[in-house]
Amino acid sequence: METPRFALGLDFGTSSARALIVDIDSGEEIGSGTANFAHGEAGIVVCAHDPHCARQVPGDWRDAAENAVRDAVARGLDTTPGFRSQLIVGIGIDATASTPLPVDARCRPLADDERFRNRPDAMAWLWKDHTAHVEAAEITALARRELPHHLARCGGAYSSEWLFAKLLCCLRVAPDVVDAASAWIESGDWIVAFLCGLDDPRLVPRNACAAGHKGLFHDELGPPPRTFLDALDPRLGAWCETRVPARTTLAGERAGGLCAEWAAKLGLRVGTPVSVAAIDAHVGAVGAGIRPGRLVSILGTSACDMIVHPLGAPPIAEISGLCGMVRGSILPDCWGLEAGQSAVGDLFGWFVREFGKSSGLGHAELTAQATRLAPGESGLLALDWNNGNRSVLADPLLSGCVVGTTLRTTAAEIYRTLIEATAFGARVIVERIEESGVAVDDIVLCGGIAPRNPLLRSIYADVLRRPLHRSRSTETCALGAAIFGAVAAGAHPNVASAQNAMTALDDRPQLYDGGAADVYDELHALYLRLHDAFGGVTRAADLSPVMKDLLHLKTRTAVRIKP
Amino acid sequence: METPRFALGLDFGTSSARALIVDIDSGEEIGSGTANFAHGEAGIVVCAHDPHCARQVPGDWRDAAENAVRDAVARGLDTTPGFRSQLIVGIGIDATASTPLPVDARCRPLADDERFRNRPDAMAWLWKDHTAHVEAAEITALARRELPHHLARCGGAYSSEWLFAKLLCCLRVAPDVVDAASAWIESGDWIVAFLCGLDDPRLVPRNACAAGHKGLFHDELGPPPRTFLDALDPRLGAWCETRVPARTTLAGERAGGLCAEWAAKLGLRVGTPVSVAAIDAHVGAVGAGIRPGRLVSILGTSACDMIVHPLGAPPIAEISGLCGMVRGSILPDCWGLEAGQSAVGDLFGWFVREFGKSSGLGHAELTAQATRLAPGESGLLALDWNNGNRSVLADPLLSGCVVGTTLRTTAAEIYRTLIEATAFGARVIVERIEESGVAVDDIVLCGGIAPRNPLLRSIYADVLRRPLHRSRSTETCALGAAIFGAVAAGAHPNVASAQNAMTALDDRPQLYDGGAADVYDELHALYLRLHDAFGGVTRAADLSPVMKDLLHLKTRTAVRIKP
Repeated sequence: METPRFALGLDFGTSSARALIVDIDSGEEIGSGTANFAHGEAGIVVCAHDPHCARQVPGDWRDAAENAVRDAVARGLDTTPGFRSQLIVGIGIDATASTPLPVDARCRPLADDERFRNRPDAMAWLWKDHTAHVEAAEITALARRELPHHLARCGGAYSSEWLFAKLLCCLRVAPDVVDAASAWIESGDWIVAFLCGLDDPRLVPRNACAAGHKGLFHDELGPPPRTFLDALDPRLGAWCETRVPARTTLAGERAGGLCAEWAAKLGLRVGTPVSVAAIDAHVGAVGAGIRPGRLVSILGTSACDMIVHPLGAPPIAEISGLCGMVRGSILPDCWGLEAGQSAVGDLFGWFVREFGKSSGLGHAELTAQATRLAPGESGLLALDWNNGNRSVLADPLLSGCVVGTTLRTTAAEIYRTLIEATAFGARVIVERIEESGVAVDDIVLCGGIAPRNPLLRSIYADVLRRPLHRSRSTETCALGAAIFGAVAAGAHPNVASAQNAMTALDDRPQLYDGGAADVYDELHALYLRLHDAFGGVTRAADLSPVMKDLLHLKTRTAVRIKP
Repeated sequence: METPRFALGLDFGTSSARALIVDIDSGEEIGSGTANFAHGEAGIVVCAHDPHCARQVPGDWRDAAENAVRDAVARGLDTTPGFRSQLIVGIGIDATASTPLPVDARCRPLADDERFRNRPDAMAWLWKDHTAHVEAAEITALARRELPHHLARCGGAYSSEWLFAKLLCCLRVAPDVVDAASAWIESGDWIVAFLCGLDDPRLVPRNACAAGHKGLFHDELGPPPRTFLDALDPRLGAWCETRVPARTTLAGERAGGLCAEWAAKLGLRVGTPVSVAAIDAHVGAVGAGIRPGRLVSILGTSACDMIVHPLGAPPIAEISGLCGMVRGSILPDCWGLEAGQSAVGDLFGWFVREFGKSSGLGHAELTAQATRLAPGESGLLALDWNNGNRSVLADPLLSGCVVGTTLRTTAAEIYRTLIEATAFGARVIVERIEESGVAVDDIVLCGGIAPRNPLLRSIYADVLRRPLHRSRSTETCALGAAIFGAVAAGAHPNVASAQNAMTALDDRPQLYDGGAADVYDELHALYLRLHDAFGGVTRAADLSPVMKDLLHLKTRTAVRIKP
């Protein structure tokens, strides 16, 4: 029997880091460990006077990495007789993005510097920080005129969550921080740097995933030109001139070897290959078995949908309304396409909190009541835009809507309607992807919500008319990171080979019901009327049939299902 | 000092009768009494197998009249030294409509006949009975082609609540009842008949109010012609031929004198003049001081709006979308116009029941929270159609809608939005009335909701940009009946004189706030967009600004009110 080999995946989320040790031949997950970030509220440093502010202390990532790996190794030793930490052959990293931090010339975070102690502007600017919303609007407006190809790569609108908006904002509110910084670097890249002992920011590989989706880095045209940055702010152009890398690197490539200090800390071999990082959602899609024709949807508080298109296949038109389309951002030999919905779990949580929970109607009871309803029976229809619309309208200023209420409408009916609305929103995205010539044959649901909610899975399958899979792993992000670690180590010749060995879907996909799907086709047509009317796709909408069609559907389905 | 004179008003509602004794010179209400109807659930005989069925036992009205008057007289004797029951000079009646009952040749209810004991079809068909919805649709369809002028008088759609739908339905489900009946007569007219001892249904005056608004009786063209009734059902034509009266009479005219039997029962003088009856809401408007330029809105579970237009004034175009327009139905020298909203109190009650109450958020707490919000601050907008739309769209198949929800939207914000939505619905009605050339200078709010709800009154005043009055009396229906009693007795020369003496408004009308009204103007414009789009007024609606305008209003008003 051959000696088993293992890869270590390190997943840096919003509040904690998770380490996962995976057998690179069988995919068996033999040990995992989690460590929370120490500072702030659940790892997030907030500002009392600005609800948009969300920062993170870089040192928390170091501490969490050490603790999570130590726990994972201990668990592996407990469960797996043949395991030793020296059998870990490669390490992969995923992290949130865009979460940039300013570092000095030795690649040390300014947040570690006594001069900037307790200055949130010198910490990492967490992905969900929206302080830079004014700057994002400026960048979008200018890029529409000056840099349309770059902007198209990140979906046609630049977000306050992304690198250049945050850098420009920092220039304005804390120029001393920018002056003191030798570079701004994405969190995933900085984690790779400290693991490998890279102490010159100019030599740290920058991951193509974050740079392409969030950093205006175009695969053919490179970073935004100086003229563009000067037009935003001359200080920005001057600052960037020598500091923006001219190239990026794909996950799965070797960024370096584990340095002696960290090898000692973690009990791993010095020089263990460390992969270039990538964004957590994208890496999670790899762990969920993404491949051409398979859409991976991560359903949590919001939804992130990912799909790939082979570089060698007939080129696709740029798809309007997606969040981005970046060469190699998910799989190295494919375009990585990303779309999303701004509220999924958050939408259900809001409804339960405001209209159910205190009356004893929690998720469980509302779900039980909603499960007893047939498709169409509520006579209701909703738009799932309570947090704006990310795809395909890319409009954060839209809001939610419920149509069809009567004096008998119940909370459970609205709860089911909100689930249906998110499914219709997902269908809009899938259909937009297919219209561009990219097939969506099956779908893998990941994230916190899908595994626990059979009602949601059944509604999604019926609305999307496709089999819905779940990943065998519940830790697809850390698993995807381990896959890139194995590839960087040369233990698998490529990502596809590693995916074949290390990932699997559940045995029983959720199939769709033809009768329910027919009803949902009718409801989806009505959803599109509302979508196009309120979303501004049309300025001459005919909504006159909506309420009556809903009523007819209600009458028909109630009779059909309950004779 | 002159001997005081009094009038007795008898108000027959859905579950009880109320008697009110009023000083006809001062308007002082010196005694009142209420008696519930004995049979059924809260006076309504229901059928287990048909939720549309709602019948009433006519004998209950006799018993309740006797008990209510006895209590009112006793109260009057207690409170008012100069009062004696013999000082009551006139009696007026109002009742629900259309609530017809079959009677025999001696004007006795078939329900009193042993042959029909316990047969709901032989009882009175209460106004809210919807058994005849199929027949109503047939009548509407035929009348649109054959009898447009009659149909226009009752608002363009015939209701299952009304006389001919019920008669046609009874012909089909219980032809023996129709065969045995010498006449069908509205409850108010039958009450007048027994009080006056009128025992020939052909000689009982039929009130113009119920006949005109609910009975297809046209002030110039008379009742529907035999050809029309034959086309519905030949049996209907044959039955009606000798039984439908050729004329109607206005409230305030003397129907007869109190008969000896009832004078003895009630302790009143034999021959006391009894007025012709009218519909409760219309009589309530008279008690609330209706006059040209003043709209009376009765806000209860639903809303009933009444206004008058002088017969001598320039004629108005027929107003589409109102519930009816009948000569003399409210004041004898005016057209009586009626409009309505299908759910007001019912809408608020639904929301509290399903989304608030069990969590401890009842009307009171939701109202308290909603009162702290500024107009526009919720960023929400609703359509008040959870029970369909009565005016001006006359479409019972429409439903409710809420637009603008976010992940922070609260129950109290939606509660306030529903109140605002009913106010916008009221404004649509007021504007439709004004477009026809009928002025609406001020508004009197009556009914169960308005007096108890300062938040609603303030929103209505701001939305409608008019002073809102309340009636000094809390019993405007019984007071209006007393006014007609006084006029029938000749104690006042006309209704206007009696209103001047006997009605008054509260001292402090609700005035509107200019700033709030400006915000509501903007919201009303958005409401109209939704109204016209979902209501089918337009098939090319531009809803693209709705969500953004709501968001802008929210941002602006929150800043303005809470600096």
